[in-house]
Amino acid sequence: MYSYERRLQWSECDPGGIVFFPNYAKWAVDGLNDMLQSSGYVPNRKLAHGEMEGIPCVEFNMRFFGAPGLHATVRHEIAVIRSGTTSFTVRHRFCSESGTYAEILDTRVWSVHGEDGLRKSPLPPEVVAILNDHLDPPNPE
Amino acid sequence: MYSYERRLQWSECDPGGIVFFPNYAKWAVDGLNDMLQSSGYVPNRKLAHGEMEGIPCVEFNMRFFGAPGLHATVRHEIAVIRSGTTSFTVRHRFCSESGTYAEILDTRVWSVHGEDGLRKSPLPPEVVAILNDHLDPPNPE
Amino acid sequence: MYSYERRLQWSECDPGGIVFFPNYAKWAVDGLNDMLQSSGYVPNRKLAHGEMEGIPCVEFNMRFFGAPGLHATVRHEIAVIRSGTTSFTVRHRFCSESGTYAEILDTRVWSVHGEDGLRKSPLPPEVVAILNDHLDPPNPE
Amino acid sequence: MYSYERRLQWSECDPGGIVFFPNYAKWAVDGLNDMLQSSGYVPNRKLAHGEMEGIPCVEFNMRFFGAPGLHATVRHEIAVIRSGTTSFTVRHRFCSESGTYAEILDTRVWSVHGEDGLRKSPLPPEVVAILNDHLDPPNPE
Repeated sequence: MYSYERRLQWSECDPGGIVFFPNYAKWAVDGLNDMLQSSGYVPNRKLAHGEMEGIPCVEFNMRFFGAPGLHATVRHEIAVIRSGTTSFTVRHRFCSESGTYAEILDTRVWSVHGEDGLRKSPLPPEVVAILNDHLDPPNPE
Repeated sequence: MYSYERRLQWSECDPGGIVFFPNYAKWAVDGLNDMLQSSGYVPNRKLAHGEMEGIPCVEFNMRFFGAPGLHATVRHEIAVIRSGTTSFTVRHRFCSESGTYAEILDTRVWSVHGEDGLRKSPLPPEVVAILNDHLDPPNPE
Repeated sequence: MYSYERRLQWSECDPGGIVFFPNYAKWAVDGLNDMLQSSGYVPNRKLAHGEMEGIPCVEFNMRFFGAPGLHATVRHEIAVIRSGTTSFTVRHRFCSESGTYAEILDTRVWSVHGEDGLRKSPLPPEVVAILNDHLDPPNPE
Repeated sequence: MYSYERRLQWSECDPGGIVFFPNYAKWAVDGLNDMLQSSGYVPNRKLAHGEMEGIPCVEFNMRFFGAPGLHATVRHEIAVIRSGTTSFTVRHRFCSESGTYAEILDTRVWSVHGEDGLRKSPLPPEVVAILNDHLDPPNPE
């Protein structure tokens, strides 16, 4: 599992003084990229001919159990729950010591941004290895 | 059904040149508020004692079928698919003439932001009437 | 002068219930693109060899006189105050009937995003014509 | 001087693959709050009667010298250049080892968000002390 903590900022709260929930989706994108990058794989690489790797989302299911307020410390945990040939699913959990704020199931497809839009592509072996390292439950050996 | 069109802006696209998908969640929030407001109900009203009405989300399920590129005209359709005592569910569809980009099921709870956080509250009769007007399939009469 | 109106959305306000001011910078970017596009010039065009036109900002000076609250109708006015060979300056004014909320001086450079970053490029004649149409004070004829 | 580093995220870049510049304004807001909070003063405190402290901006002047690309490490430095009775000015510098990307002069007014909007208020002594600790050039003693 990959995790880090963030303090909920003024820029991220709504007029009710709690998190503006679309920010969870942004943190899910940035956090997954950070998981790859901190494990040695730079995501969204530039490829030949002006193409670029991407990890577009095909399904993103959010459930909310409580909302952090301004200045709350939020822990973001990312666990891989499925790893396939061209796609994978992670579970994001946003929580504090007192419980879970939100849980997200996030399915991505390994892709190339080319002239004609997005096309899917097999997960690179380095990425498969990183995903396996973050499986929940862990792989038996 | 409530709908409007928006042009996909530079500020809303990612380095791949397509929509940054968390923006759909933002449009869902703003679009639902617009539906209420254009039907005569100002959402997020200030109440007595510094309290405020709110419509927090409890579940938000997004599926993506294709991604609009910079400058694309995106139509946002909102239909109410369930209306209860304190909560309701809407379906957001983002589409163009050539098909559907994304579909979202969005469940909200009518609430009050007070001193001690959020507490749920019955849907006001004016809101029930607006939701009924946007039911899909429409109510038989 | 180019202008349009927007209602201040829940997504755009801070926990104080007023506009989160960095949104003015976002509206300045999108509004200027809209001015060009509604005048017949699609900005940020794709060029040959994976290059793209851009209009990066070199100076952006904001002054604030008051802050609109949630649901306020904000009028955004854009006037061109200088048009040069490769750069130009516009003035953004955000206001309502009761006065000016913010004023911005925004200097942009016509550019190409290429392999080696940004390089400046002369303003296309169609763009010069559009800028002249929005000069304040207007060109004497 | 207060400083920290951030990696430029996918969510923060535009279709040209470089920083979307309004994010600098967001980082300026959050970074200044972090400077206060890491020095022991929680900003945007709730006061009695549903009021809240705030630090609205009255002037914000940005100059850009270069643009970081996706994944760049950006150092954000905040120095206080003026501290008055109810207002103060900070300089934000965004840079890397190879130079300065952007510089911002940011003037704020200490305020209270009340029923009737914002009203200014003297800087609390703890805040004056924190600002003095971050003066550039430093106070002679």
